[in-house]
Amino acid sequence: MAVPRYLTGDAAGIKEFLDKFDVFLFDCDGVLWSGDHLFPGTVETLDLLRSSGKRVVFVTNNSTKSRADYKKKLEALGIPATTEEIFSSSYSASIYISRILTLPPTKRKVFVLGESGIEQELRSENVPFIGGTDPTYRRDITPEDYKLIAAGDESLLDPEVGVVLVGLDFHLNYLKLALAYHYIRRGAVFLATNIDSTLPNSGTLFPGAGSVSAPLVFMLGGKEPVSLGKPNQAMMDAIEGKFQFDRARACMVGDRANTDIRFGLEGKLGGTLGVLTGVSSKEDFVEGDVRPMVYLDKLSDLLAGQ
Amino acid sequence: MAVPRYLTGDAAGIKEFLDKFDVFLFDCDGVLWSGDHLFPGTVETLDLLRSSGKRVVFVTNNSTKSRADYKKKLEALGIPATTEEIFSSSYSASIYISRILTLPPTKRKVFVLGESGIEQELRSENVPFIGGTDPTYRRDITPEDYKLIAAGDESLLDPEVGVVLVGLDFHLNYLKLALAYHYIRRGAVFLATNIDSTLPNSGTLFPGAGSVSAPLVFMLGGKEPVSLGKPNQAMMDAIEGKFQFDRARACMVGDRANTDIRFGLEGKLGGTLGVLTGVSSKEDFVEGDVRPMVYLDKLSDLLAGQ
Repeated sequence: MAVPRYLTGDAAGIKEFLDKFDVFLFDCDGVLWSGDHLFPGTVETLDLLRSSGKRVVFVTNNSTKSRADYKKKLEALGIPATTEEIFSSSYSASIYISRILTLPPTKRKVFVLGESGIEQELRSENVPFIGGTDPTYRRDITPEDYKLIAAGDESLLDPEVGVVLVGLDFHLNYLKLALAYHYIRRGAVFLATNIDSTLPNSGTLFPGAGSVSAPLVFMLGGKEPVSLGKPNQAMMDAIEGKFQFDRARACMVGDRANTDIRFGLEGKLGGTLGVLTGVSSKEDFVEGDVRPMVYLDKLSDLLAGQ
Repeated sequence: MAVPRYLTGDAAGIKEFLDKFDVFLFDCDGVLWSGDHLFPGTVETLDLLRSSGKRVVFVTNNSTKSRADYKKKLEALGIPATTEEIFSSSYSASIYISRILTLPPTKRKVFVLGESGIEQELRSENVPFIGGTDPTYRRDITPEDYKLIAAGDESLLDPEVGVVLVGLDFHLNYLKLALAYHYIRRGAVFLATNIDSTLPNSGTLFPGAGSVSAPLVFMLGGKEPVSLGKPNQAMMDAIEGKFQFDRARACMVGDRANTDIRFGLEGKLGGTLGVLTGVSSKEDFVEGDVRPMVYLDKLSDLLAGQ
């Protein structure tokens, strides 16, 4: 396996590398910022790429935010961005449902386990849904519920539901899991915005979207959802469908070998760029099973190439 | 593999079989009753065994009920029983924690994901605990919680917790999962009352205790809890520890090959008896990988042996 090229401090190498690409797909946390801390030089680096005519796309598995929410988050950190530059797993899932899945006309409704980001993106694609942040579902299961669910009563199990979409749900509960399970048993397509097991916050880890689908996978005897987030290629297909770029002229930038770099490699992008400001270490990039084409100490090292 | 003997209608065979055992361990749902429906002849069959000097033990993975609760359930169905005859996974877990686990004196507290059955049994063994049905934990996670958990703040992470015990929790939520995960990361022993993926109710299936531990297993990269329910032998050891019986003179009775019959076989009991009033079919018993020694159409067929 090729050893990735280390480009920090190599101005000519950086310039040559940048010239190969028209599109840069960015993982965000660990690359542009960490938690609430913007890395120095992030804004200038993005400016350099944009002013050189490159397209910049922010690719995030965060399903709790819509693209509009995420734009606000970027701007709050000081990064100018347009909604069009943002590609989230909630948007990816919405596109997949509206444009790729073929559902019978009577089975177009989505039962959502997740937060408002998913709801907003489903609305933007005119996909009908139930569940999500509806407070009706934020309650304990009752003895009556068991009977109604067992009987397939339409007051609890909407016969138009043809998809169960699971993202990160901070309001996960027993009733929602029971309903999602029964919808899938009755034939609904099982989708996940992403299956990250954990969610970084405050320098440690919390349950991720994959922990919300895990009980369903276990109840269903190991049946996995189709994931619309990194590193699943359904997300790359959706990005390409939207931006119509040449994969050979695109580069994925990320801090995690096993998700970001894998996502770019399996997507057969022209390049992959690893940075050492996040999860993966130099050893991961240089000796691991999944290696980027080039790597840098930090993203802003690209500024040497201007 | 031996073909199990079919004893329905074979009075001499039944009598010979019954004479081999002093102790009968009973799975309940699917054997003695189904849902709220008591099978005809259940009470008479138990009477026959008791009047012949056999010990009867009701073995249940239901962790939401204490033995006292379960006795009430049996009596409501018309089955006379004493608390001493009942062995539940919540009791099994409590015995394991109090008598088998060796915990440092400063790490004896249990963080419970589950209902009052577990709490009552922990109290009966004088095991200190937090979590469980405490309404303090039945709330949304807040931005402040992330910081406090990340900092290991004692207001949220009790430093005396040395065990996380997961059972069926109808009030499962994100905060409790986050806390359980952090306790385990900080070194707490990961236990489950049982890991049944589903719970039968009203003729269909709902999330079981194993679906409550599944998100934690996923977050922990596949680390499984020690399960104190069937078919795990920790439960058999606990039953034997309590009743001091001769395994060669004990018989496990159940409707499920893969849990009940497996439990008896792996526990090296003298006998296993399958009944066809529950999950497993005749084909499962006769041609499956896990086969009972004998099987009956229904439990009350034993009455022919008196």
